[in-house]
Amino acid sequence: MSKPLEFIKVLDLTRVLAGPFCTMILSDLGAEIIKVEIPGSGDDARAFGPFINNRSLYFLSINRAKKSVSLNLKTDQGKEMLKELVKHCDILVENYRPGTMEKLGLGYEILKEINPRLIYTASTGFGHTGPDSSKPAYDILAQARGGIMSITGWEDMAPTRVGMSLGDITASLFTAIGINAALYHREQTGLGQKIDVSMLDSQVAILENALVRFQADGVSPKPLGNRHPTIAPFQAYKGSDAYFVIAVGNDSLWKNFCLALENPELFDDLSFSTNRLRTENIGPLNSILEPAFAAKTAAEWLKIMEKAGIPCAPINDVEAVMNDPQVLFRNMIVEVEDCQAGSIKIAGNPIKMSSVPESPMREKVPEIGEHNAEIYGSLLGLGEAELAELTAKGVI
Amino acid sequence: MSKPLEFIKVLDLTRVLAGPFCTMILSDLGAEIIKVEIPGSGDDARAFGPFINNRSLYFLSINRAKKSVSLNLKTDQGKEMLKELVKHCDILVENYRPGTMEKLGLGYEILKEINPRLIYTASTGFGHTGPDSSKPAYDILAQARGGIMSITGWEDMAPTRVGMSLGDITASLFTAIGINAALYHREQTGLGQKIDVSMLDSQVAILENALVRFQADGVSPKPLGNRHPTIAPFQAYKGSDAYFVIAVGNDSLWKNFCLALENPELFDDLSFSTNRLRTENIGPLNSILEPAFAAKTAAEWLKIMEKAGIPCAPINDVEAVMNDPQVLFRNMIVEVEDCQAGSIKIAGNPIKMSSVPESPMREKVPEIGEHNAEIYGSLLGLGEAELAELTAKGVI
Repeated sequence: MSKPLEFIKVLDLTRVLAGPFCTMILSDLGAEIIKVEIPGSGDDARAFGPFINNRSLYFLSINRAKKSVSLNLKTDQGKEMLKELVKHCDILVENYRPGTMEKLGLGYEILKEINPRLIYTASTGFGHTGPDSSKPAYDILAQARGGIMSITGWEDMAPTRVGMSLGDITASLFTAIGINAALYHREQTGLGQKIDVSMLDSQVAILENALVRFQADGVSPKPLGNRHPTIAPFQAYKGSDAYFVIAVGNDSLWKNFCLALENPELFDDLSFSTNRLRTENIGPLNSILEPAFAAKTAAEWLKIMEKAGIPCAPINDVEAVMNDPQVLFRNMIVEVEDCQAGSIKIAGNPIKMSSVPESPMREKVPEIGEHNAEIYGSLLGLGEAELAELTAKGVI
Repeated sequence: MSKPLEFIKVLDLTRVLAGPFCTMILSDLGAEIIKVEIPGSGDDARAFGPFINNRSLYFLSINRAKKSVSLNLKTDQGKEMLKELVKHCDILVENYRPGTMEKLGLGYEILKEINPRLIYTASTGFGHTGPDSSKPAYDILAQARGGIMSITGWEDMAPTRVGMSLGDITASLFTAIGINAALYHREQTGLGQKIDVSMLDSQVAILENALVRFQADGVSPKPLGNRHPTIAPFQAYKGSDAYFVIAVGNDSLWKNFCLALENPELFDDLSFSTNRLRTENIGPLNSILEPAFAAKTAAEWLKIMEKAGIPCAPINDVEAVMNDPQVLFRNMIVEVEDCQAGSIKIAGNPIKMSSVPESPMREKVPEIGEHNAEIYGSLLGLGEAELAELTAKGVI
């Protein structure tokens, strides 16, 4: 048993969300993450709520099992130390605004001369090229400009944001794919390369059938609440107490669904006999289904539907997710231990690989510069006295 | 210049969305995708709308540049041919219900004996282990059970589905990360492995700070419309004609924002002086901002905010996304050519790598079995007469 990225060292210059989420994935795959933080304040996310005992749980949730070194990249000595670290690392990930690394004298063209095997990864809002490359970006800008807000929510209402930072997270995932592919490529060629992933590009990449629906219909798709654009019934319905979802994904499920509802006449109704007709006639169909579902609780319906083989599920709130037996069985809720906040539950690694033992349940989160002695000692050969001097000078 | 997965062969047994989206990413990275389809009907998604000239644009949008062979895995000869193909392939991806491959006699334990270097990848709703492993799944079940629907949309309204298939797509991305990591790992160890990624696990993995907000507050987070849970103002506002978004991500932006609004008194108001206070007092704050924004058009506000350095963006509908200069500059809209539907625009590859030339703009979508002669000829040594016989017997 061994993790795929064992012995891979990642120099992580990222802050906040998209970058740190990506390097957390690399960490779960076995890489050593050297998180480079500004002396004193560290990653901006250390100041983001929610807090317990003044510790940012936001930071905790995406920085487990990383090592932290402090380094001031605005000092000449800090820059030299970074260049030394680059010699020993396989991957560098940064999420500065385009041009910042160049201004620091640490752009890819310089770093690749120092280490031609380096995989240099830039995670940005709009990418390292194009007319809007240098514009500032946050998640909601990517969600808005990338189209997802225009198809999420309810028609004739205010636009709706996806309830997590989809702009950041999607970019993280595409970045992690690129990094792993580049590692494999380096085995073939001996060379690193530059990877450039933007939040906006990543949003466009996941618009999925919305792009072709526009071309088929000639008008931009509208938000559909909780319905699917081309499958029906495939949505949330309300029982007497709560909502639940069903997915009648094909015509043979439709028959079983009608029988489970004890409404065989519905199956005989020719206006609902195919998925296409059910999608077109969703209004009349729902005027039959909605009152029918109101007669029993969500739990009762789920039992009935499950017995009939109809794909269905409760709509879990976060507490229910964290207690879901399947989620727990799969080790998708893990704990991090913090000296101040205590034991905090966060999401586990969804990439289950047969070579990788499941992660230990408790993984610490680093203090700023906690691993200075270890990393600067082993990679740069610096001793206690030198580190004390660098600290006094504000370099680390 | 070379693509990272050049010379990698992928045996793609997947249908519909999560699997085909994953192998499309592998294709963009240079792998050869051998799409194995049921003779006659092929991938279910070939029957999914929207259609142009009876061609499924749904299928077109996620199957560009793949090769298709037809193969009936329920025949003995079909199974033998699959085992022969496995000898020549690096990766197998399947998204059957857990147990199906074993019932066919094609489970991982058997295939790894045939090719120990094989990376076997299972993409499922709930995973290959756990109490609900064998339950049927569709995207909306993962969105509901995984918690995302409980935090997307508007409080005291019906639950809201994210407007694209986030359950499928997120699983695709984590699967692609695992496959690339396994390729690198195989270079180190000489061995393949099994990867098991589920939609439900993948949804939990991206819940992000919602898990820790539950632990800090003791109650499950609620949907917030288009607001951010801990940053303000960071949402959509309506100009005189349309909505747009702004992201005042820190306190120095707050000052510039107030000046851009020509409302310096707002900056002096102590109830809004920090991000934490603005988040807590978002109601009173919005009762000032909303009427102010109603005075000008969205385009006028975007111009003003941009000039002041405030991160902001229009809320693009799909048509606007497809004409966005930054999106076009980054080659995020590419064309596929289809003999019946004509030229169709779909999303490009967001992983920009310096070793990879941008993809040609026109990539064909395969017919069912279009590459039988090429693949079965080159890998299995079958000639025209043998293929004719296999076709007559319904094996291919």
